[in-house]
Amino acid sequence: MRDIDIDKLAKMIDHTELKSSSGEGKIKDLCVEADQFGFITVCVNPVNVKFAAGQLKDSDVLVCSVVGFPLGMNTTEIKALEAKKAVEEGAAEIDMVINVGAMRDGKHDYIKADIEAVVKASAPAHVKVILETCYLTDEEIIKACELSVEAGAHFVKTSTGFGAFGAFAHHVKLMRETVGPDIGVKASGGISNIKDAMRMINAGATRLGTSAGIVILEGAKLLKYATDSWLEPEIPCHTCPARSASIAKLPKALYQYYTNKCMKCEYREKYNKFYE
Amino acid sequence: MRDIDIDKLAKMIDHTELKSSSGEGKIKDLCVEADQFGFITVCVNPVNVKFAAGQLKDSDVLVCSVVGFPLGMNTTEIKALEAKKAVEEGAAEIDMVINVGAMRDGKHDYIKADIEAVVKASAPAHVKVILETCYLTDEEIIKACELSVEAGAHFVKTSTGFGAFGAFAHHVKLMRETVGPDIGVKASGGISNIKDAMRMINAGATRLGTSAGIVILEGAKLLKYATDSWLEPEIPCHTCPARSASIAKLPKALYQYYTNKCMKCEYREKYNKFYE
Repeated sequence: MRDIDIDKLAKMIDHTELKSSSGEGKIKDLCVEADQFGFITVCVNPVNVKFAAGQLKDSDVLVCSVVGFPLGMNTTEIKALEAKKAVEEGAAEIDMVINVGAMRDGKHDYIKADIEAVVKASAPAHVKVILETCYLTDEEIIKACELSVEAGAHFVKTSTGFGAFGAFAHHVKLMRETVGPDIGVKASGGISNIKDAMRMINAGATRLGTSAGIVILEGAKLLKYATDSWLEPEIPCHTCPARSASIAKLPKALYQYYTNKCMKCEYREKYNKFYE
Repeated sequence: MRDIDIDKLAKMIDHTELKSSSGEGKIKDLCVEADQFGFITVCVNPVNVKFAAGQLKDSDVLVCSVVGFPLGMNTTEIKALEAKKAVEEGAAEIDMVINVGAMRDGKHDYIKADIEAVVKASAPAHVKVILETCYLTDEEIIKACELSVEAGAHFVKTSTGFGAFGAFAHHVKLMRETVGPDIGVKASGGISNIKDAMRMINAGATRLGTSAGIVILEGAKLLKYATDSWLEPEIPCHTCPARSASIAKLPKALYQYYTNKCMKCEYREKYNKFYE
């Protein structure tokens, strides 16, 4: 684990800038950095795709655009059109958000058709399906992964970074187990250092979405100096999504789901004490 | 101020549910409540417009949809199509988000054309332009209001509720002063009780976007029992947007703008002590 291949790690990172307050200067910097550090893509909002593609025309860094972002509550028709336009303007990858409300309502046909339409409109670009795992139960995450694969998606992805919380290894592992080895799993949201990144990769992620790519690569270079304690297994409750479950931010039923899970968890006596 | 007209107040409120985790049940409740309490609209995501319009077909509550929400970083073409489709499906009002990054970059022609395209695509529905005031300086807010009026918008609106912070009376006042008496001003984001609501209305808001409409109406009924202390003028620093300015959430230049403003503020000796 200490001998991480820095170039390989860089090629797993979508170098990301999705804040609405970021102007062209930020996107220009993002492109320069991506080229310099060897990231696989820059991930930008639709309005920045053309500009980013122009900046990167002499580089092998790809452009990734988001669709229906970050709420996923646009109609299928608009999502498909948005994807098509982004691909025309130079996007090689499309990260779409599912309609989380419909997923929670159990409208599986709708979810599948929504993804299918974007996959079709995006071809030959690859599509990542953002599940926004913070708002779903484990069972819903599994089902959403199955629907994504059936609909022809190339990746499933945890989070937008704008939800109640971001990527957790628990969810990444679940997603990897569900989609098998041939579909990509992208972890995103709150990945801010090499420890976060390694946790996601060890759980099965093949792609990381983060704005901390440079910090992560710097951390990777320092790994060889890490003490053994740094590499010890983590306390399970400390990396459990239940820890981020807050009644202020989650639907009531989902908050209840997490409290019930905690109560029955094998670690409840040892670490938990209900969120300590 | 104690004799507030409850019905008039209800007719100023867009009863709002924009969370991605909210399914059809929540939207149904929203429509029932809006009809029962006499709110002017329900404000929902595009994917819920048709359903809400169906629920409200025998009511005089209108449907308001959001466009390019909440980041505003879609292309103009997609925003216009999204607005058109929402109106076709039953939306009578469209709340669009500007491209905040472009506004901060000073691309005024772009901003105006973006709004114009949505106004045109939405007719006869009215358009509210969400400035996302948390990411703009006072000068940028004034300019964005001018561009909105020039582009034919019917309202300017403070916030999405998904940004760094929501509506402040300071911004509402600025917007009202800029657009004059004939354009609507909608305050939204963090308006959770009658005190917040009155503060916005006193600053010049003619519409409130909130998910706390029922709580606000209940509060209004209790106003006649309020003690005099409740009605005293508020300490200026307590209701100043600078108070919510955080380096973690705002662009660095904007954070600097707020700290500079605080340093020169007329209240700096009396209340401020730099955020106390």
